[in-house]
Amino acid sequence: MTLEPIARFHAPFGENFGIPRQSGLVESLRGEIRFEPRYRQSEAFRGLEGFDYIWILWGFDRNRRESGSWHATVRPPRLGGNRSEGVFATRSPYRPNPIGLSSVRLERIDPDSCTLYVRGADLADGTPIYDIKPYLAYTDAHPDAAGGWTDSCAWSELQVVFPEEVRRLLPEEDAATLQRILAQDPRPHYQNDPDKVYGMSFAGYEIKFRVDTPTLTVISAEK
Amino acid sequence: MTLEPIARFHAPFGENFGIPRQSGLVESLRGEIRFEPRYRQSEAFRGLEGFDYIWILWGFDRNRRESGSWHATVRPPRLGGNRSEGVFATRSPYRPNPIGLSSVRLERIDPDSCTLYVRGADLADGTPIYDIKPYLAYTDAHPDAAGGWTDSCAWSELQVVFPEEVRRLLPEEDAATLQRILAQDPRPHYQNDPDKVYGMSFAGYEIKFRVDTPTLTVISAEK
Repeated sequence: MTLEPIARFHAPFGENFGIPRQSGLVESLRGEIRFEPRYRQSEAFRGLEGFDYIWILWGFDRNRRESGSWHATVRPPRLGGNRSEGVFATRSPYRPNPIGLSSVRLERIDPDSCTLYVRGADLADGTPIYDIKPYLAYTDAHPDAAGGWTDSCAWSELQVVFPEEVRRLLPEEDAATLQRILAQDPRPHYQNDPDKVYGMSFAGYEIKFRVDTPTLTVISAEK
Repeated sequence: MTLEPIARFHAPFGENFGIPRQSGLVESLRGEIRFEPRYRQSEAFRGLEGFDYIWILWGFDRNRRESGSWHATVRPPRLGGNRSEGVFATRSPYRPNPIGLSSVRLERIDPDSCTLYVRGADLADGTPIYDIKPYLAYTDAHPDAAGGWTDSCAWSELQVVFPEEVRRLLPEEDAATLQRILAQDPRPHYQNDPDKVYGMSFAGYEIKFRVDTPTLTVISAEK
């Protein structure tokens, strides 16, 4: 089966750095779904405005291995890279068919441009999107479902020190969202160098920070 | 993006007739996911046994329109075919990229054949499967999410008359599952002819029934 992108995702990140590891982890994070010209028909979205959440089926286009190669096991970042699980027991991007699945909150639809405004996504800027579906709680929601190995290893969040003189440079909503992103530990896996200065672009700002686990300290924010 | 099937679904139906309209509607319905030879590696499923539910990403291969064609609106069977909604506001198979998404209960994994035994699927026999992912309640479950137009039109189930002399021909579990399938109204949309005898193959039996709405009467079951 051949899939053609129907839309692209637009995220407030300059690169992959900082993207939440799953949808919903940073609920306030804004994003936009912009459709390809041939799908910009407002009738195609009729009725969608009544749904709180939508599914996005998207392509892991930045994480693709050589075509056709796959590995039976992966080392989830959540397990600190020390343990491996079967690829089908994880949401890893390194899978036989690199399709991502994310539920996001639908905030608003612009009927003229057919842009969907969403919150809580875990997609990089420019990600190709292959399908949008309404979220149906009666068939999609299993709140008490056992989550296997993920149930016994909660994320440990970082404590974020965000000095007031840096924080006030950003609009309040962006500052609050940034704090949630930083608490999720955006460092590449398994790094721990308290002297290293990390840079991350977010919402038009270049953010610099250091991490001395479990504390992350924001150093600067520049336009 | 080109997708290759990693597995096929095996359902107890002889053809499309009787397949539930969404996953979970017939919770007891059994099915099997049988992997292609190159994916039959037990390590690829390590850790999956701890999850109650899995996602299946699959192909609407029996409902495909001519390649490249799409319609902005569809008439959901749930609305009786009288009203149309935007294709992206429905789970219709007739969509730009014909990928289906279903959460099913994972009952058991056979480690030798790497077969997954599931319940509650809405897939036809032979359906190609492109990905299997673990269901993660913390990111996938939104039990209170508003469901737009679907919230105001509950399925009206049929009342099933299943005479004891026919029912006892089937194993009890199959009979109970069949009753749930028939209650969902497996007729092609918008048909209502009380004299018509419908046939459906299920679990090795050829089932015959009539429908005089809101009552469905099972006539016979033959091996």
